[in-house]
Amino acid sequence: MQVAMTGDKIVPLDELEPIYCDRGFYFGDGVYEVVRSYNGKIFALEEHLARFSKSLSAIEITGVDITEVRQRVQKAFEAASIPNAKIYLQITRGSGARSHTWENGLKPNFFLTVTELPDNTEAKTKGIAVSTHPDWRWKRCDVKSLNLLANVLARQDAAKKGCDEAILVDETWLITEGASSAFFAIFGRRLQTAPLTANILPSITRKYVIKAGEKIGLKIDEKSLTPEQARGADELFIAVTTQDIVPVVRFDNKVIGDGKPGRYTRLLIEEFRSFTR
Amino acid sequence: MQVAMTGDKIVPLDELEPIYCDRGFYFGDGVYEVVRSYNGKIFALEEHLARFSKSLSAIEITGVDITEVRQRVQKAFEAASIPNAKIYLQITRGSGARSHTWENGLKPNFFLTVTELPDNTEAKTKGIAVSTHPDWRWKRCDVKSLNLLANVLARQDAAKKGCDEAILVDETWLITEGASSAFFAIFGRRLQTAPLTANILPSITRKYVIKAGEKIGLKIDEKSLTPEQARGADELFIAVTTQDIVPVVRFDNKVIGDGKPGRYTRLLIEEFRSFTR
Repeated sequence: MQVAMTGDKIVPLDELEPIYCDRGFYFGDGVYEVVRSYNGKIFALEEHLARFSKSLSAIEITGVDITEVRQRVQKAFEAASIPNAKIYLQITRGSGARSHTWENGLKPNFFLTVTELPDNTEAKTKGIAVSTHPDWRWKRCDVKSLNLLANVLARQDAAKKGCDEAILVDETWLITEGASSAFFAIFGRRLQTAPLTANILPSITRKYVIKAGEKIGLKIDEKSLTPEQARGADELFIAVTTQDIVPVVRFDNKVIGDGKPGRYTRLLIEEFRSFTR
Repeated sequence: MQVAMTGDKIVPLDELEPIYCDRGFYFGDGVYEVVRSYNGKIFALEEHLARFSKSLSAIEITGVDITEVRQRVQKAFEAASIPNAKIYLQITRGSGARSHTWENGLKPNFFLTVTELPDNTEAKTKGIAVSTHPDWRWKRCDVKSLNLLANVLARQDAAKKGCDEAILVDETWLITEGASSAFFAIFGRRLQTAPLTANILPSITRKYVIKAGEKIGLKIDEKSLTPEQARGADELFIAVTTQDIVPVVRFDNKVIGDGKPGRYTRLLIEEFRSFTR
């Protein structure tokens, strides 16, 4: 008799709860998005749904109706009634016996949470510290997949060093991005960030940061930088959906600028705010 | 009110089934092993448990008692009473709110299945076809983690081409290994396979293949090979726990040798069998 065991409990395999047969559980075979609201209004939902759709296509998960996903997001957001909410949504390929190859006609599994965003005023006004970590991620970081162990390990390493984010450095000694954020440097009146390649997530916040940068008269350089170059920047910051722009005031223990959020970073935070109203 | 949604059903977040808070589900934050039995006897269990222990350490999952894991494997195997069984076991870091960094004191979650191994006589006697795919995996393939999306996509690509395994090729145009197997080539009386580096899983079957190779008088070359070199090999095969040695008779549509399992591969299969009795 085929069996399964959860903790120390043995059950016949065919009585196992279906969730244990989710391919997300065995392989991380799924993709996700994080969306947020500002004062009761979801920000950039269409861009997130478009990226979600691209991620699904990239790993060949078919049969997902984005209209239905949008309705579910809206329905759950209304049910939660949280003005500043984090909406996490994921779709896995479906449930089945553990086999690398998948059967035709699997039904994708949808999962979502709506939670309260913690207040990040302190991080925004004082800035955060970051540390570097080798970029161990897979080679398709343009896909927002559930294979996040490299990100998890990098973030934990940063936390151990008293830092709030890990900045990932690839084998050619270039910064790709943060473990869960985009990374930016300001040199004079130039705003620099890595170009979008297969090893960079096409961050939606990044797009709005660039737009804000242009609005305040910064020149945009889409060019990778080394950790040494980052240490020498006038200003640094990260950008992530849940917190938009967060100033970085320490980079691998090197104090950036005067150790306070820089002038242009503060202007960018202001500009970004105007997009969210 | 914080909420979750599974499919189209909304539930308060604190009423969500705990399995949905498993870090394996969000991040693939866990490791696994596959063990098999031959005629009622589990093969190389201690080696698999030792590797499992190393995988757990590598990603800093603590508080797992390997003695208890061994007992659970044995208990489930006895309960199943399947002579030629596949035993899949995984441990994730535990359950908690979705946050890249983990809290101290998380309780790891244990999961296992015992299933019947399909008969693979045909594959062993006729050989299989394989195709190459870029190695998109992360940079710590020495850890047997649940981040397997790159492997899944490579295997599906192989299946589309009518092949049974994908052979992964890295950015320097060297073969690392199969998507779920080790890969071997025979040139004359030399047995060649990639050396164990951070991008190779230390396969237990590989170890026994090398032992078998030495017993039949082959010289062992632990050296990576290119797809072109593989195409020109006298014999090719893959090695994987669930099937031990499987001859490869087509490589990217190139017929290997005379299109039948080679002489040394057949001898290796014989030798390997003696280890499992």
